[in-house]
Amino acid sequence: MKLRIYVTLKPGVLDPQGKAIEHALSGLGFSGVDSARVGKLIELEVADGTADADVDAMCRQLLANTVIENYRIERA
Amino acid sequence: MKLRIYVTLKPGVLDPQGKAIEHALSGLGFSGVDSARVGKLIELEVADGTADADVDAMCRQLLANTVIENYRIERA
Repeated sequence: MKLRIYVTLKPGVLDPQGKAIEHALSGLGFSGVDSARVGKLIELEVADGTADADVDAMCRQLLANTVIENYRIERA
Repeated sequence: MKLRIYVTLKPGVLDPQGKAIEHALSGLGFSGVDSARVGKLIELEVADGTADADVDAMCRQLLANTVIENYRIERA
């Protein structure tokens, strides 16, 4: 079973990587980019029948830092 | 207008970060994780009416390394 986990910074948390992208795009001549935020996309191949609770535990214990990041799990 | 850009490593490209996640999950007692691949999720807020060709150019010139990465653009 394939899972996709999207890890994004919580609103209000500074994102220097996103800021760098904003400036670089503007430097390359792309105007109209108001904001850029960078997150992670983790694709996991897990055994069929892996419980939702287990996947949630993986995110909380390892994949996301829940102090500053949100995560969303999608079954592909 | 909000855009989401998913940047993933092409199949066959080594992903040490993904391997580290695999081993760490197995070390934490989560069995059945066959593979993990890590990509980037870039959320852009751009002016309404930004052309698809411009967004594609942003990806090719800055956001993705097309030698080793694929990208997918999603309008949110």
